Amino acid sequence: MTERNISIEAADRTAVEDQGVEIVERKGLGHPDSICDGIAEAVSRALSQLYLDRVGRVLHYNTDETQLVAGESAPTYGGGEVVEPIYVLIVGRATREYGGERLPVDATALSAARDYLNEHIPELDVGTDIVVDTRIGEGSGDLQDVFGEDGAEVPMSNDTSYGVGHAPLTETEEIVLTVEEELNGPYAADHPELGPDVKVMGKREGDLIDITVAAAMVDSYVEDLDEYDDAVERVRAYVGDVARGLTDREVRVEVNTADDYEAGSIYLTVTGTSAEMGDDGSVGRGNRANGLITPNRPMSMEATSGKNPVNHIGKIYNLLSTDIAESVVADVDGIRDLQIRLLSQIGRPIDRPHVADAKVVTEAGVDLADIEPEIRSQIDDRLANVTDITRRVIDGELSTF
Amino acid sequence: MTERNISIEAADRTAVEDQGVEIVERKGLGHPDSICDGIAEAVSRALSQLYLDRVGRVLHYNTDETQLVAGESAPTYGGGEVVEPIYVLIVGRATREYGGERLPVDATALSAARDYLNEHIPELDVGTDIVVDTRIGEGSGDLQDVFGEDGAEVPMSNDTSYGVGHAPLTETEEIVLTVEEELNGPYAADHPELGPDVKVMGKREGDLIDITVAAAMVDSYVEDLDEYDDAVERVRAYVGDVARGLTDREVRVEVNTADDYEAGSIYLTVTGTSAEMGDDGSVGRGNRANGLITPNRPMSMEATSGKNPVNHIGKIYNLLSTDIAESVVADVDGIRDLQIRLLSQIGRPIDRPHVADAKVVTEAGVDLADIEPEIRSQIDDRLANVTDITRRVIDGELSTF
Amino acid sequence: MTERNISIEAADRTAVEDQGVEIVERKGLGHPDSICDGIAEAVSRALSQLYLDRVGRVLHYNTDETQLVAGESAPTYGGGEVVEPIYVLIVGRATREYGGERLPVDATALSAARDYLNEHIPELDVGTDIVVDTRIGEGSGDLQDVFGEDGAEVPMSNDTSYGVGHAPLTETEEIVLTVEEELNGPYAADHPELGPDVKVMGKREGDLIDITVAAAMVDSYVEDLDEYDDAVERVRAYVGDVARGLTDREVRVEVNTADDYEAGSIYLTVTGTSAEMGDDGSVGRGNRANGLITPNRPMSMEATSGKNPVNHIGKIYNLLSTDIAESVVADVDGIRDLQIRLLSQIGRPIDRPHVADAKVVTEAGVDLADIEPEIRSQIDDRLANVTDITRRVIDGELSTF
Amino acid sequence: MTERNISIEAADRTAVEDQGVEIVERKGLGHPDSICDGIAEAVSRALSQLYLDRVGRVLHYNTDETQLVAGESAPTYGGGEVVEPIYVLIVGRATREYGGERLPVDATALSAARDYLNEHIPELDVGTDIVVDTRIGEGSGDLQDVFGEDGAEVPMSNDTSYGVGHAPLTETEEIVLTVEEELNGPYAADHPELGPDVKVMGKREGDLIDITVAAAMVDSYVEDLDEYDDAVERVRAYVGDVARGLTDREVRVEVNTADDYEAGSIYLTVTGTSAEMGDDGSVGRGNRANGLITPNRPMSMEATSGKNPVNHIGKIYNLLSTDIAESVVADVDGIRDLQIRLLSQIGRPIDRPHVADAKVVTEAGVDLADIEPEIRSQIDDRLANVTDITRRVIDGELSTF
Repeated sequence: MTERNISIEAADRTAVEDQGVEIVERKGLGHPDSICDGIAEAVSRALSQLYLDRVGRVLHYNTDETQLVAGESAPTYGGGEVVEPIYVLIVGRATREYGGERLPVDATALSAARDYLNEHIPELDVGTDIVVDTRIGEGSGDLQDVFGEDGAEVPMSNDTSYGVGHAPLTETEEIVLTVEEELNGPYAADHPELGPDVKVMGKREGDLIDITVAAAMVDSYVEDLDEYDDAVERVRAYVGDVARGLTDREVRVEVNTADDYEAGSIYLTVTGTSAEMGDDGSVGRGNRANGLITPNRPMSMEATSGKNPVNHIGKIYNLLSTDIAESVVADVDGIRDLQIRLLSQIGRPIDRPHVADAKVVTEAGVDLADIEPEIRSQIDDRLANVTDITRRVIDGELSTF
Repeated sequence: MTERNISIEAADRTAVEDQGVEIVERKGLGHPDSICDGIAEAVSRALSQLYLDRVGRVLHYNTDETQLVAGESAPTYGGGEVVEPIYVLIVGRATREYGGERLPVDATALSAARDYLNEHIPELDVGTDIVVDTRIGEGSGDLQDVFGEDGAEVPMSNDTSYGVGHAPLTETEEIVLTVEEELNGPYAADHPELGPDVKVMGKREGDLIDITVAAAMVDSYVEDLDEYDDAVERVRAYVGDVARGLTDREVRVEVNTADDYEAGSIYLTVTGTSAEMGDDGSVGRGNRANGLITPNRPMSMEATSGKNPVNHIGKIYNLLSTDIAESVVADVDGIRDLQIRLLSQIGRPIDRPHVADAKVVTEAGVDLADIEPEIRSQIDDRLANVTDITRRVIDGELSTF
Repeated sequence: MTERNISIEAADRTAVEDQGVEIVERKGLGHPDSICDGIAEAVSRALSQLYLDRVGRVLHYNTDETQLVAGESAPTYGGGEVVEPIYVLIVGRATREYGGERLPVDATALSAARDYLNEHIPELDVGTDIVVDTRIGEGSGDLQDVFGEDGAEVPMSNDTSYGVGHAPLTETEEIVLTVEEELNGPYAADHPELGPDVKVMGKREGDLIDITVAAAMVDSYVEDLDEYDDAVERVRAYVGDVARGLTDREVRVEVNTADDYEAGSIYLTVTGTSAEMGDDGSVGRGNRANGLITPNRPMSMEATSGKNPVNHIGKIYNLLSTDIAESVVADVDGIRDLQIRLLSQIGRPIDRPHVADAKVVTEAGVDLADIEPEIRSQIDDRLANVTDITRRVIDGELSTF
Repeated sequence: MTERNISIEAADRTAVEDQGVEIVERKGLGHPDSICDGIAEAVSRALSQLYLDRVGRVLHYNTDETQLVAGESAPTYGGGEVVEPIYVLIVGRATREYGGERLPVDATALSAARDYLNEHIPELDVGTDIVVDTRIGEGSGDLQDVFGEDGAEVPMSNDTSYGVGHAPLTETEEIVLTVEEELNGPYAADHPELGPDVKVMGKREGDLIDITVAAAMVDSYVEDLDEYDDAVERVRAYVGDVARGLTDREVRVEVNTADDYEAGSIYLTVTGTSAEMGDDGSVGRGNRANGLITPNRPMSMEATSGKNPVNHIGKIYNLLSTDIAESVVADVDGIRDLQIRLLSQIGRPIDRPHVADAKVVTEAGVDLADIEPEIRSQIDDRLANVTDITRRVIDGELSTF
């Protein structure tokens, strides 16, 4: 029926949800690595849009290497200051000239970075607390070719690489993801003392889930140690509520465990991110494409953020495999754990992976053979529409970290 | 007997060697990501040594964020040139003053980077083809404390993190690792046309192993397309020999599959690394601590290279878990696949992980219960001697990528 | 009477006003060199103020080396864009720590630069059209000593250097200075198409004064070549009016003489400064302390902008010599041309120059001997109050370029 | 006879040699400003040569803005170390592509800078003690045109600018120039303790000449304060000998007057330049084209070093006016002091200055009218051969600082 090389088999393991020990981590928006992911992806979207606006299709670029060099700060109750600014270097290559017209690559990148920072790390004063610079080259001649965006034609893979996705999230994964999103969303809106650098680690041993949160507090909203302690306690209570709403397992929460009140060592910051005081950051060192770090599951080392979404397989296949896994699980009953892996081959159309490989743990009583055709058909269908991923990335519908 | 929290259980999966599909990758020494790993680790060793020489113990530092911005080159048969130099930024923080004495942190880092490049990427002319700069800050006050190195005392973990290691290598893993080491070792010594940027990907489906090699050729040793083609063919033959010496499975080898001779698009370089023509690089984006990228196995996202080996748990636990897995497999009979995971807790002595977790696939006919005490004793013993890792890293005995 | 070494003698030359050929130049506020002077001086004032606010006195710093790397732009009638941003590197050294407190040197410098740019080059979008970075070191140990600001005590000279000033301005000098100030002041307020990069050159041969103006036009206010031509013509007419109000000599004005309408080569810019399209800039390469470049007169090579005004003699003596010349001419009748030169000696109090040397051309019929005591007394008095210069610089009352 | 606008008149002043007070300064090769001049000019020569070799003529470039950011050092008797490296940024613009070929602009610049440093500041270890980076843009479209080098055609001036030269040198000027050249030449060859950062200031009052030398000593050749003191004394004696060989006036010499032996404050360095410890540097801030800073004479503010010698009038006219003055004085008897000033007009052939203006002080008893034709003919002739300057600059025959 299909010519795609799709392999579906039973996973030779128990579902992650049923394993004895599980570890899950998420670096929040304000973590130095996430700042880099966020800037790189914002720059990528802006460049895609620039090319579409000016040329009608996305030209060659790749900006998946933003580097952040931490600053130095002097936080104080009531409001301290950044003493040495953070330095961010946007790295990559992009087409600067097309049809005789010069394209404002660096200005577009800088503008995207600034807007991103202003929106997501609002306490950082761009230009004073943080300096953003660029080193964006022209790229190698071989890749200068223009990437089509006509939809009709499927681009060729630019590399031999693979992507991995899985679904559904385990309870622990769901909790870790949701806790960070809630803290950086509604909670932070009401509690300005909470900075965006929230790191959540979940550890499940059997039916006990430990959630450890490191939450940077913003000094201008904290008058003294009592207020700090209250702020920490508020986060602890909130996280407990969120987590317990997502599981019936026992949940324990700890926040800022490294604090030492007597030594005066607490997690107080000026801007809400540890990038201000010694923590460097880099694209691709934090969350995977599904927003999590999951050592219980296979992961791809590829940085998803910042890559060109037209033919950069390291990006497309990570997003697509996650997307496929989620949609299969949503549409096909009886799956307890699904892993999708897509392996590309350089020079092959991206809708024809070298192999698309599904590992399934079925629910008790479900026979894989019964649902296999449905799964195959779904995978086949999603591969056929691979260019949807490109569009959704450019439109900002898909998160990459 | 021991107070360490060591958990040993049967893996709820088949050994990776017995799984249907396996993917393994290694980025060779000259890959842009590996160049960054190599520089970062060389800088780290040099700083450790600087502190030991001047102060008698290793002071706080962390240099795990080198960023490489690719250059631009014009390769030509017989020898082309680098047109835009590569730019490398060494990022991190380090203690610059101790006991009133200023310590030459940047000069030490620059010198280590230069020596590393001269040794491993010899065709790169440091200072002309590649510019190396530093942005090394002072780090946050909290971490300025001096780390002891007396041996007697075990340092506290600096983070809540984990490391993962496994043993033994599968055949495919062994092949991928060995192929790169042989190519960059004895083969390159005899064949200067082979540059150090060798990327090896292994894919095993059942008993068929496909090895795909991308090998940068150095233009000054290649006179024309025929010579290039010969060089590629020589690599193909050599890799086949190496691989077949390590397995009885069927092996297929492809080299530089993206070449298009008619279009004149081949993998020819001036300096033997794609960093010269558009490929950026970063620490921690390539090989894991065991030298491989293994999507069939759990991996840690932590960059191992460049971190302080005294108390930086993201480094120590990755190296240690690999080391434990290897030594257990070497000493205990009957193990087909072993995974060791170490989870730290910030502020706890590093010889007491929050949990040390072993997952074992035994050989057919072996009962885990019979070998469990031996495994436990080994793990306990290695944890007790955790500071050996620090010493071996400083002495350059352990590779980190 | 006084112990100061003051030498007053008749100049062995005619007054510049009476020489046959005279050349005078002024680089306007938006010229790349002036941008650097302006930023350096703004940073200097901000650092002085920072130290006064935090510590009560001005600590050691020197920031007289801002470097501007030009960008690239694509101006178009109606509004083009900056394609490659301008890069500004603020260079210098400053005391970062005092009494255990860290002082936000870089953040202060960046903030001062941004405010300066926003005020004076408003069409430049800081952070997108122009990236500002810093490399500010700690300075040498010898100079780390704290500079007093108690008023009572006169600081020691930090160098063997000299300053030169003269008064009154010749007509040509007055015209060149006024033309730029009027164009960048009231005229620009009414005519937004005129950018701040206005360069004025005056050449007088006998009684004919040629004024040549290069004026960057801002493309968003210019719809086509006709409008451009009108804008140029308006500037020409205005400059003529200003100049003729200051002299009875014949005045000729040329504006944007390098334009070639047929070749489409005109002085159109996006932001009003040539820094956007290929003209680099540096501190100390443009106007001297009196705002002019005057090859008919002795000049000091010292950069005045950006230097510490407490004891940096290269700054103080240039400002002071000009100030002395002006006040002597204002108070003492009968002087046609006065040059004051102050030579410092390192380690000597700055109110006691090695030599203060006045060269006087008297008006016809005036005997130098008659006015010499008045001149000497004035010079002596101003030297005694040398620290006024420091205060006025910090308060922004004295311009340095 | 000639159509060139040449104006020759008697100077309305006494010869500088006969003035009461004279000040002269020279910053030696190792002074931070001179290092920048030297690098910029070496880069310029290398780029000219690159273009000649590859294209047959010099393409557009301008590299007159090298910036040096000082390092930090810890000198010690017997040999200290550079603690923070010096940073040098080569700034400018250059044509990177011609006839479809990419030209290695940055690599050429970096290589030229390294070679220059290795030759002239040998104690600086390039890559460790000093980091050299580039920011070389493409320049504005208008100037992208190719500059001819056919000899037949005279290029057009790129700017309205002027150059000033004079001859002969006064005794004080001759002494200052010679002292530095001898110290940095034969003396340093025999006395490795003397670093290249030698600053010489000469002040003449009547017939008394004070020579003040600041000489950086290299710590690895100085074992203790006694040796340092001996080294200083040796320089003092040598300078005295050199100076007295050039004048019959009284000469006084002081060396390192800012030293304070009791406070332990001496001019000891690791590498022989104050750039290692806090003194920043920049092109065009030091010596003028004749190697001196001469506040008694008109000077041009234009940086001569680093500019394109084909049509960059700020360079050509400064070198040419000096060259004309010297050759006129050599060939025409009876001149005591000659100043040549050349004023360009943008767009005019450079052999036709807007005005060439000579001011002559004749020897006693010589009538200007008698020698005026000879002077005029010489000036006319040299202007006709203006392109010789270009060739001599590229061949390295003319020094620019």
